[in-house]
Amino acid sequence: MDPPPRTALGAIAGRRTARRFDPARPLPDDTLAALIRLATTAPSAFNLQPWRFVVVRDPRNRRKLRGCTFGEARITEAPAVVIVLGYLQSHRTDLAAVVDRQLELGAITPEAAARLRAEVPRIHGRMPDPASHAAMLAAATLLIAAESLGVASALLEEFDREGVREAFGVPDDHEVACLIALGYAAGPAPFPGRFGLDHVGYAEHFGRPWALGEPGGIPPLDRGEVSE
Amino acid sequence: MDPPPRTALGAIAGRRTARRFDPARPLPDDTLAALIRLATTAPSAFNLQPWRFVVVRDPRNRRKLRGCTFGEARITEAPAVVIVLGYLQSHRTDLAAVVDRQLELGAITPEAAARLRAEVPRIHGRMPDPASHAAMLAAATLLIAAESLGVASALLEEFDREGVREAFGVPDDHEVACLIALGYAAGPAPFPGRFGLDHVGYAEHFGRPWALGEPGGIPPLDRGEVSE
Repeated sequence: MDPPPRTALGAIAGRRTARRFDPARPLPDDTLAALIRLATTAPSAFNLQPWRFVVVRDPRNRRKLRGCTFGEARITEAPAVVIVLGYLQSHRTDLAAVVDRQLELGAITPEAAARLRAEVPRIHGRMPDPASHAAMLAAATLLIAAESLGVASALLEEFDREGVREAFGVPDDHEVACLIALGYAAGPAPFPGRFGLDHVGYAEHFGRPWALGEPGGIPPLDRGEVSE
Repeated sequence: MDPPPRTALGAIAGRRTARRFDPARPLPDDTLAALIRLATTAPSAFNLQPWRFVVVRDPRNRRKLRGCTFGEARITEAPAVVIVLGYLQSHRTDLAAVVDRQLELGAITPEAAARLRAEVPRIHGRMPDPASHAAMLAAATLLIAAESLGVASALLEEFDREGVREAFGVPDDHEVACLIALGYAAGPAPFPGRFGLDHVGYAEHFGRPWALGEPGGIPPLDRGEVSE
């Protein structure tokens, strides 16, 4: 019998960064496609969706990728690694298709469509790094989606980006945002702790003490339902 | 009777950017604290957690914030708006506390702790914008958490960041990453479409056609369970 579907709060609170992956357990094609599809549900400025995903599964390619990560073992242990990119020219090359599709779906009026076509290229150009923002929004969504499907994940941010660019043919108009190793965990993924809300939260103005306390009614972070 | 808990896949696929908020429905303190707490479950490089959250609820402050968003009505309609910041000095000021806590929880060995203390300040300094990456990872997690709790959200990325900095006292060592309006939706939030995986995905190498097809078994994106 299938397990009951994962609750959203359980998947968010229970996600851990995998320490080891089981190299003997491949990730089914359909699961991998579902994870990328779910990652694309993330929001992005003007819905331009400037995230791109290079899915690396071939063992030789994972060895090559590992060479760009200072020998990170999880890159070759995990059956799949996603290189998450941010595309810098979406407001030029993808805007028309995005606006047309929104019109087609009845999500915007023709007047709003005309305004978007006219104004987004200029507005988008002055936003700070929307491609990298979108790539990280998609990455976080992918991690929670993985946890939801019982797939272990590890987000990796420290690696040789120029090496990845060269080895995987990433052109200059794309940023290399992060890597996500995906597979099934081998061994525990311990909870590394989080700061309290009084450390990261402010009320009304920067520096004014957090006034809302710690919440009840959500799973304790240090013992979420673990997917292993 | 309470509704059944939201499934993780339903919350991810069903999340929409709210078009309007009901200004008459406040957001309970405990829900707001839960959302920020869940946002902090996101991963970050070396678990430095360089996200910060300024929760703006006072109507006068939301009017002030609206003034920094080219008149965005959702800022004053929504009962709460979170200013999401990225803190640029976490590898200097927070590293010791983060490593100590991991040791205390048994998540790392004393040898790993010593290595982190010695190496992170240097490594972190050469990563591209880890504070902004972390802020967006937390933002995406917050949006899915909101959907999970039946709270409508709108991520806003286009606004006057210097204006926000000045109005809310954000110091120079923090980036203003994005705004998240939170509350209860008034009216529909239509699905604006997404590119197919053949547009955003590549197999093994940049530019090589996506080889995994579209997935089965996940909720259709254009009719997720909507929270309204």
